[in-house]
Amino acid sequence: MSEPLRIGVAGLGTVGVGVVSLLNENSLIVSGRAGRQIQIVASSARDKYKFRGVKVLDATWYDDAVQMAHDPMVQVVVEMIGGSDGTAQELVETALTNGKHVVTANKALIAESGMELAKIAEERGSTLWYEAAVGGCIPVISALRDGVSSNRFIRIAGILNGTSNFILSKMEKEGRGFDEVLKEAQDLGYAEADPTLDVEGMDTAHKLAIISTLANGSPLNIDGVYVEGIKGVTRRDMKNAEELGYRIRLVGFTERTSDGLLQRVHPTLVPKASSMGRIDGAFNAVDIDGSASGRVLLQGQGAGGGPTASAIVSDLIQIARGARPAPFTIPVSGMRRLDPVPITDLQSCYYLRLKVEDQPGVLSDITSIFAKEEISVRALIQHDSEEDAKPKDQPAAAQTPQTLQGEEKGPEEKRFAQVVITTHKTKESAMMNAIAQIDALESVVEPTHKIRIEDL
Amino acid sequence: MSEPLRIGVAGLGTVGVGVVSLLNENSLIVSGRAGRQIQIVASSARDKYKFRGVKVLDATWYDDAVQMAHDPMVQVVVEMIGGSDGTAQELVETALTNGKHVVTANKALIAESGMELAKIAEERGSTLWYEAAVGGCIPVISALRDGVSSNRFIRIAGILNGTSNFILSKMEKEGRGFDEVLKEAQDLGYAEADPTLDVEGMDTAHKLAIISTLANGSPLNIDGVYVEGIKGVTRRDMKNAEELGYRIRLVGFTERTSDGLLQRVHPTLVPKASSMGRIDGAFNAVDIDGSASGRVLLQGQGAGGGPTASAIVSDLIQIARGARPAPFTIPVSGMRRLDPVPITDLQSCYYLRLKVEDQPGVLSDITSIFAKEEISVRALIQHDSEEDAKPKDQPAAAQTPQTLQGEEKGPEEKRFAQVVITTHKTKESAMMNAIAQIDALESVVEPTHKIRIEDL
Repeated sequence: MSEPLRIGVAGLGTVGVGVVSLLNENSLIVSGRAGRQIQIVASSARDKYKFRGVKVLDATWYDDAVQMAHDPMVQVVVEMIGGSDGTAQELVETALTNGKHVVTANKALIAESGMELAKIAEERGSTLWYEAAVGGCIPVISALRDGVSSNRFIRIAGILNGTSNFILSKMEKEGRGFDEVLKEAQDLGYAEADPTLDVEGMDTAHKLAIISTLANGSPLNIDGVYVEGIKGVTRRDMKNAEELGYRIRLVGFTERTSDGLLQRVHPTLVPKASSMGRIDGAFNAVDIDGSASGRVLLQGQGAGGGPTASAIVSDLIQIARGARPAPFTIPVSGMRRLDPVPITDLQSCYYLRLKVEDQPGVLSDITSIFAKEEISVRALIQHDSEEDAKPKDQPAAAQTPQTLQGEEKGPEEKRFAQVVITTHKTKESAMMNAIAQIDALESVVEPTHKIRIEDL
Repeated sequence: MSEPLRIGVAGLGTVGVGVVSLLNENSLIVSGRAGRQIQIVASSARDKYKFRGVKVLDATWYDDAVQMAHDPMVQVVVEMIGGSDGTAQELVETALTNGKHVVTANKALIAESGMELAKIAEERGSTLWYEAAVGGCIPVISALRDGVSSNRFIRIAGILNGTSNFILSKMEKEGRGFDEVLKEAQDLGYAEADPTLDVEGMDTAHKLAIISTLANGSPLNIDGVYVEGIKGVTRRDMKNAEELGYRIRLVGFTERTSDGLLQRVHPTLVPKASSMGRIDGAFNAVDIDGSASGRVLLQGQGAGGGPTASAIVSDLIQIARGARPAPFTIPVSGMRRLDPVPITDLQSCYYLRLKVEDQPGVLSDITSIFAKEEISVRALIQHDSEEDAKPKDQPAAAQTPQTLQGEEKGPEEKRFAQVVITTHKTKESAMMNAIAQIDALESVVEPTHKIRIEDL
């Protein structure tokens, strides 16, 4: 057996401890598959003396993680500090510059600085590994780089943020509101004190941008990702989705169109019985549509010490074996920029929720607008706004104007109804025009709420 | 860019044509990701002049595929002939011996001769790739070798035979019998004229044995796989399973026990709503339970020209890039044989279907046997044997003897009832003892039919 592979671990939080434990527990399996031992020769964390339940023996301690990148004993730096700048960035840059390989779980860093880091790695003969940055233990990076690399990728869709998925599944199961469930997730430690990156969709966008670059060979473009978080999803939407046979998930999509590359992250109605509709709690899933393979689905735990460590140590095994792929498979110099396609060009089905005055003529006004914008209505359901959401009408035929029926109301008293509309496939810009006109109607008393529907 | 990788393709059936088409259509993508072109320099098939809709230009034709393995221009042989011996075996052996890399979709060959072939490859510095042999386009070999390679694998379960899954899903959806659906599958070309390998479970066993060796580092042992096909599954079983909330799938399992390695293939009741229960038609799925990752599920099309070609060309890309893993990750010399654990040691839940004389005391006799064997009954449902399967009784409490109620019958006339029993987890050997005693009862008029239940 060859010389051990000598690694330095920077950051000893949940993930760092997971990596150390996994290397200890599975050392025989790891060295068997790697062809040699993987040995921790350096470590660094904020507090040297914190009790962590694992021991890193015979390793040089660095108070300043960046110094590890200058240690000639260290062949691979495992960066588990986090954050897209500061120490993490400096450490990774310095390590790559010094010809050391880097394994990281840091999606923000890769999504923001991936091109620069890949360039350094390619120039210096080092490599950059980030399986753990996307989808936890799910081998999606390995699949795109190796296992299904022969395909042109038509579309890749992913549930990539465990916190959002946890919140949405809990809202759905327990009929509770967003704020309440977020609070609980924070108390339980499932959500960060500042949950912005997670619930506003940026974490998913980071991961999506990484997948997209690997799959399409177009340079990272995080600003080109359309992002909408889950804060606007209400209990009502959950209930309506359920009635219509859907669930609401935060999904990231990257797809090639004739004009370029459309990258987007938003809450999405997905069929209840579909693979994506069934991804609950902290699970992640990636649905890869390849030109030769057809649909390939990968799912597993998207976060946590064990799953993340699984991905990091799997990367280490490949380094130990001598794998030296370019960070994004295609060298940065060989990438070809695909034009970002704006969200207004999206072709999608839609779910709309409207609050209207409960009076004759309202539905007629709304459906006329759809007719004008050539949007085909698939179903139209109306409820009393205050009562429990139960369907009253059967779905209306497409574009048939329809008036409210059988509602008793006093001459003075204003009553409101909730109208739920789903549409067939249409262009986002047409839908935006329609919504602008609908919201301008006097009888529409709240801004129309829109969620895209995808047949995943 | 480096020199092209020069390959020879042997076999130009559906898969061979798929590979040629994919290399033509995606040549830019493939060469981008591979770092160089992949060029077909030799080809062979049974009939040189058959019209195939694809052209292999500038390639040397071999009537005898084995001669391709002596062509110094050929660096990689892609074997798509099939069969575990004959030309396929000779071609692969000769190519590896001559230092050429081999990519194959031939599960029977790998399962039967994998160890000998791996030894040759390791001695001669060649490599052997077989992603296409297991699960079509699903990157399961790549996942076990690379993406989740850091894990000790607790259990791997797979739906790996498209034909069996097609037949079972069709029986389930259309309420038809096995023979009828098999006939249709044959007429449609989904099943071979000789469907033995598929429906009797050997094809799944081949694939399972390959996965098992890669996952556990124990030499291939196809004779150590317990195999039971789907021929015994009846419409009645389908209906009963449905009522109990299950579906019936042909599943292969490999799992480590304290005594060694238990490998098994058999029809299995899996929860309807589970990922496995939802795999329909020609789809395959693999459920990997890793010590660090937890459950990881991979699914996709298990056969067909496109999906199989996706796997083969992905292997070629990795060879072109310079990847040179040992065929089973761990070199043959480093493998450690795990003792085969007999099926009698399995711990499982069970579904039993009995045909009994419809008279008082029968259930009491049966449940006494379970009590004696310390088998805990979970549910007991009885139906008139002839009428449509509808539950009459509520599930009985565990081990509570119970007699038939309210059945009217004339003194002379013999009536029969179907009794369906599910059990909690018990040892297979205890279940076999119980069934032997049950079948010896005079009132039990047909051999008891048993299907294992797994909580996938």
